[in-house]
Amino acid sequence: MRIEWADGQMPVLRSIRERFARERPLEGLTVGLCLHVTSETGCLVRALAAGGASVALCASNPYATQHDVAAALSDEVEVHTGGPDDWADSVAAVAARAPRITLDDGADLLSALHAVPELLDGMLGGTEETTTGLVRLRAMEAEGRLAVPVIAVNEARAEKALNDRFGTGQSVLDGILRATNILLAGQTVVVLGYGWTGRGVALAAHGLGASVIVCEVDPLRALEARMEGFSVMPASVAAERGDVFITVTGGQDVLRGEHFVRMKDGAVLANAGHFDVEISLPDLRGAAVEVREVLPLVRQYDLGDRRLNLLAGGRVVNLAAADGHPAAVMDVSFALQALAAEALATGSFTPGVHPVPDGIEREVAALKLAALGVEIDELTPAQVAYRSLTSPPLDR
Amino acid sequence: MRIEWADGQMPVLRSIRERFARERPLEGLTVGLCLHVTSETGCLVRALAAGGASVALCASNPYATQHDVAAALSDEVEVHTGGPDDWADSVAAVAARAPRITLDDGADLLSALHAVPELLDGMLGGTEETTTGLVRLRAMEAEGRLAVPVIAVNEARAEKALNDRFGTGQSVLDGILRATNILLAGQTVVVLGYGWTGRGVALAAHGLGASVIVCEVDPLRALEARMEGFSVMPASVAAERGDVFITVTGGQDVLRGEHFVRMKDGAVLANAGHFDVEISLPDLRGAAVEVREVLPLVRQYDLGDRRLNLLAGGRVVNLAAADGHPAAVMDVSFALQALAAEALATGSFTPGVHPVPDGIEREVAALKLAALGVEIDELTPAQVAYRSLTSPPLDR
Amino acid sequence: MRIEWADGQMPVLRSIRERFARERPLEGLTVGLCLHVTSETGCLVRALAAGGASVALCASNPYATQHDVAAALSDEVEVHTGGPDDWADSVAAVAARAPRITLDDGADLLSALHAVPELLDGMLGGTEETTTGLVRLRAMEAEGRLAVPVIAVNEARAEKALNDRFGTGQSVLDGILRATNILLAGQTVVVLGYGWTGRGVALAAHGLGASVIVCEVDPLRALEARMEGFSVMPASVAAERGDVFITVTGGQDVLRGEHFVRMKDGAVLANAGHFDVEISLPDLRGAAVEVREVLPLVRQYDLGDRRLNLLAGGRVVNLAAADGHPAAVMDVSFALQALAAEALATGSFTPGVHPVPDGIEREVAALKLAALGVEIDELTPAQVAYRSLTSPPLDR
Amino acid sequence: MRIEWADGQMPVLRSIRERFARERPLEGLTVGLCLHVTSETGCLVRALAAGGASVALCASNPYATQHDVAAALSDEVEVHTGGPDDWADSVAAVAARAPRITLDDGADLLSALHAVPELLDGMLGGTEETTTGLVRLRAMEAEGRLAVPVIAVNEARAEKALNDRFGTGQSVLDGILRATNILLAGQTVVVLGYGWTGRGVALAAHGLGASVIVCEVDPLRALEARMEGFSVMPASVAAERGDVFITVTGGQDVLRGEHFVRMKDGAVLANAGHFDVEISLPDLRGAAVEVREVLPLVRQYDLGDRRLNLLAGGRVVNLAAADGHPAAVMDVSFALQALAAEALATGSFTPGVHPVPDGIEREVAALKLAALGVEIDELTPAQVAYRSLTSPPLDR
Repeated sequence: MRIEWADGQMPVLRSIRERFARERPLEGLTVGLCLHVTSETGCLVRALAAGGASVALCASNPYATQHDVAAALSDEVEVHTGGPDDWADSVAAVAARAPRITLDDGADLLSALHAVPELLDGMLGGTEETTTGLVRLRAMEAEGRLAVPVIAVNEARAEKALNDRFGTGQSVLDGILRATNILLAGQTVVVLGYGWTGRGVALAAHGLGASVIVCEVDPLRALEARMEGFSVMPASVAAERGDVFITVTGGQDVLRGEHFVRMKDGAVLANAGHFDVEISLPDLRGAAVEVREVLPLVRQYDLGDRRLNLLAGGRVVNLAAADGHPAAVMDVSFALQALAAEALATGSFTPGVHPVPDGIEREVAALKLAALGVEIDELTPAQVAYRSLTSPPLDR
Repeated sequence: MRIEWADGQMPVLRSIRERFARERPLEGLTVGLCLHVTSETGCLVRALAAGGASVALCASNPYATQHDVAAALSDEVEVHTGGPDDWADSVAAVAARAPRITLDDGADLLSALHAVPELLDGMLGGTEETTTGLVRLRAMEAEGRLAVPVIAVNEARAEKALNDRFGTGQSVLDGILRATNILLAGQTVVVLGYGWTGRGVALAAHGLGASVIVCEVDPLRALEARMEGFSVMPASVAAERGDVFITVTGGQDVLRGEHFVRMKDGAVLANAGHFDVEISLPDLRGAAVEVREVLPLVRQYDLGDRRLNLLAGGRVVNLAAADGHPAAVMDVSFALQALAAEALATGSFTPGVHPVPDGIEREVAALKLAALGVEIDELTPAQVAYRSLTSPPLDR
Repeated sequence: MRIEWADGQMPVLRSIRERFARERPLEGLTVGLCLHVTSETGCLVRALAAGGASVALCASNPYATQHDVAAALSDEVEVHTGGPDDWADSVAAVAARAPRITLDDGADLLSALHAVPELLDGMLGGTEETTTGLVRLRAMEAEGRLAVPVIAVNEARAEKALNDRFGTGQSVLDGILRATNILLAGQTVVVLGYGWTGRGVALAAHGLGASVIVCEVDPLRALEARMEGFSVMPASVAAERGDVFITVTGGQDVLRGEHFVRMKDGAVLANAGHFDVEISLPDLRGAAVEVREVLPLVRQYDLGDRRLNLLAGGRVVNLAAADGHPAAVMDVSFALQALAAEALATGSFTPGVHPVPDGIEREVAALKLAALGVEIDELTPAQVAYRSLTSPPLDR
Repeated sequence: MRIEWADGQMPVLRSIRERFARERPLEGLTVGLCLHVTSETGCLVRALAAGGASVALCASNPYATQHDVAAALSDEVEVHTGGPDDWADSVAAVAARAPRITLDDGADLLSALHAVPELLDGMLGGTEETTTGLVRLRAMEAEGRLAVPVIAVNEARAEKALNDRFGTGQSVLDGILRATNILLAGQTVVVLGYGWTGRGVALAAHGLGASVIVCEVDPLRALEARMEGFSVMPASVAAERGDVFITVTGGQDVLRGEHFVRMKDGAVLANAGHFDVEISLPDLRGAAVEVREVLPLVRQYDLGDRRLNLLAGGRVVNLAAADGHPAAVMDVSFALQALAAEALATGSFTPGVHPVPDGIEREVAALKLAALGVEIDELTPAQVAYRSLTSPPLDR
């Protein structure tokens, strides 16, 4: 039932599943998945199976497993979802199946395979869904140890420009509103970090009436923020002006002691970055004379003359205080995964980390447009000919 | 504790309470309140009491009473909050105190007072917080039966341009996101009704990346929507294009059978108007071959070839699916209430329904700006003199 | 030819002319016009004549007369357009025709009629297009000297919410760009005054990528600006931050010595208010060590350590540096004029200044929507009945 | 005087000139320029000369030469600006100087140098400012004929994300307003092509109140447009809805017969692409029963039952009807040029077309921020260390 509902929200993946069922591009291949075991992942599993794959699944994070989904899937495919204690065993069990293609969320499965070189024989490659996983894989590549091709799904333009910007942007604000019920209009929201996610947060906050300040360390991004109409200033100056602070840099200690002492009474602090190190909790605790939970997701640090309100303990606020990514976001991500797996099945990639091929980006975009009921033009033959004379390469 | 937290979120009312404590403008007056008994109302009660009033409180809606707040307040003022069965008694009990000023949310208390004419002797007047209450009071006025002045708080410009637009706009979308976790970017949102609340909903939806269509019956409002960049079309045409429909007209049957049959599979229907009559539930039920609850706040009507998803049973979605108005909104509303009570205490109004005096609007706005840390200019004496030569009356 | 082109740009007035030609609502009435003699006015003259009126026209500002238009019109109606020297005579000539309805742009014609009381006999009333004219007429009314009804066309909501906001907003920025060719994105634009025109300027500047600061003296307007996401601060603080300053207050000396000394080198100063007193020219001259024309519409004041660039000598920049209001704006204004004249012809108004009747606002809006190809809904009879139970009066 | 004024508008280039004067990075090098001879180019010439270069200049387009600027510069550097007849001689004259670095706007100078191989000896490389030039140079590279390194200045992110988006976006609308004086609010603007320039046009049109429709052939761009809130549809459908059409694709015949026959009476057609082939003039002429010039930049094609208004003969509207790029845009472009020349002077590039190095992008952005008075943060050493563990490569 949950998978069915998710299926209704994932039209792009559904149309891929239908094509896979006709074309069977993964016929006879074992595909190993190490992903969050959720209803959305269930839809991905079904698409791969429809394509002819023999699927083996384990959990990339045992705490996030939806056990009813795991149970339902175990009727259809091989599922290894131990608890936290036997998590490593479940990854090993999938690796032992010698999958020819892997789909990873943190590079755990592919790492496990590299520990047993004979399992790599005949591997066609893998996909990776996270920045963290790619850091590991690129380090392996730099050391000459990455033996198979890997497609960096989460660096696809469709992933960044759509999911990071709109999916995360919306859900971060959603999390802040649920935790605090503040009114954004009239507030000054300080967004620290102006990558794709930061852009999404800034746009959404502006769209709800906030006055937005952007802090950045990269001059090009800072300039873009400024040209797009936002105020840009150092965090130490923004600290005095902000009502709500949202970190989204991928770095650490972005808000720290020197900022806390300048903030206004009642300031709200939220983190939208992957790890809970962007707001310095040690500095907050060190500065506070008293700490108390004032609402379920709001911890108040009393600095004596002012109170700062930390949301969700500094953990990523859209997951901790809201429902994480909308299903429409996972639809695009998992569609990229499924098509990347299909591309790997052709055996045409060299070992190393690869970007998602343009054709896959375009196919996902085209399917998403179709799902939205949007039609677009095609070039006429004459236009194609003209373009070949003049066109620059794809603007990524 | 809850009242204390609310107090932290209501700086405008707090600064009025502090002035009232110094100036005691309500010294010796009995003030009767028939309002939702919530932590925010608790702050209003304390402001009135600080001003010297003897406060008697009953609930305008017994189902909405926060009983811990009622208990805490009963240590300070007279509180009558019976349950649904003895609600009328509680209103009568407050009326029996012969309050000289009333604060109403639906005109129940003032109506009760009019039923006992001697209780009206010496009354200075009342305030009214709702459109529904004003309809009743204006009907009484038209029949020559309204014996006292009433200030129409919810028609204040500060209330409409700020609370309706930003408070309701934000919370309506918040409610929809909580109920469905859809991604607004890329969706077509149809807003039916372009009063202040409709504007707020349209702006917020646009701010989150939706493509917005506005439906209106008033040509002037429709033209404004169009000049502001929205698509405007009849509901019957919009029905075919929308992914999410939000009614906010104050009317009835805004979405009905003729619209449902044109909608896309998966369309989401939400109501942001006060009453649950804007989406025709009888027509939905009549058209459906099956109805089921697919998520806690989502009822799905299967019309055979398409499924429509109704949120919160058609009740006002920001209350039913989110936390209603942000405290910052109630801060402005209750500040208007408190200052209106102070104005009534001067005895300078004639019987009838009156708009909130401009001076009160300006004072609330000035206090809110101060709370936001915003300073503004003042006219120089020369500019005042020049303006008196040329200026049009206040643009409402 | 010019009138024909203007006619193509004024579909609302054109459809009124066509109805007037069928219904002849002004049959037999002499209508006196004292307006700018332009191609757009030519279209208004033809609409009135089509309605059966005998039209007599003089220029409200002899310097603005388009003489080819005057010549073309003199074949059809009575035209008195002397030069600056015999301007008063031309107004007197129209007054001598004893018009029963007047259309004024500064109240000159109606004032002339009041100077000869017998000319007022049988007058049905007049319309007024300018704030300046209304100040004169309201002063007459306050002194008990206004003998006829006057409809305040330029206070119509259609005029303010559409023309002032969008027409003036766009053309003010257009004027600044033509004079300077600066890039607005990345600039800080300070808008002084947040009435309808100021809103339009702020929105348009924001829409072109500028970071916008609003300065206001009215706390309610200031709060609205803030809730709409703009920075709000005193002019003395904004002076240090702005790259472009635009005054639009209706007041005087809004930017003055104390502000000039704080501005950045290269700051641009433009006035969008009616009179050239909003930027203090005496203070600018007093502070400058050198003044020179650096571009045709740019006068540079060198204060020694910084240079300030004044556009168009402080005159209203959309007229002085661009083409003034788009024809679409005059279409709405003159449609209101034509329908106000029709309403006056019914003889149903009492002496005094009156707002434009709601019905006229709605008719103009409906015609404009039709011209834009936009259709809207109508209430069903059941909805009309329901609304009569609950509806507040028109929100102006 | 003109160069001085331009210098005031080009603070980034000015600060580079000041550093060049101190550091003399081009000491002793002959630098050949084949660019538009304008006041902005004059500033670039001075910056290069300040860096120690011996500069020789010819015109990339003899029709665009500002002769007063050429005369002023000829006092300082070698200038060859013949008229159209001896243009090739002027290019040859600069080539004959055997420049070690070239700055090109169409690849003419570098092509001339390749025709005389001995002139290439000792060449350090060139820069190219246009897409057209890069097409030529990449063709040479593919054929193995490109003997020197070339830096593709116009593909810099600073150039696209800032200049194309904001500079061209603003100036295209400026051109349309000057040509027509239409009111954009309430209009439907159809933007054909959603590259960086198309985005800029769409944003600016939306920012001025238009309802925007985007037409695209690339599904990823189309999806981005949709997620950003715009309507997306095929041109043949948009043709029926638009009031203003703006082509900005780089392709040909984007608007053609099949579209013209569906358009509304009075539709406005403008081209913002480089060449005048995006709107099919043959199809327009073929469909028209009459063609006439109704305003200086407006040619009206009467199709019998409707009239279409073509601006500027289909030539690029921001150049033909407005003043082209704001000086702030050229400031960034020429700053990239100057720094690219400095980078080439180090001799560290291999033959072939190269992107602008990230460091140059960042330096220009940092200087532009400084010119705007914007300060930003720097990473702490601990943050640098943390980032090296986790960071993805620069997001271009």
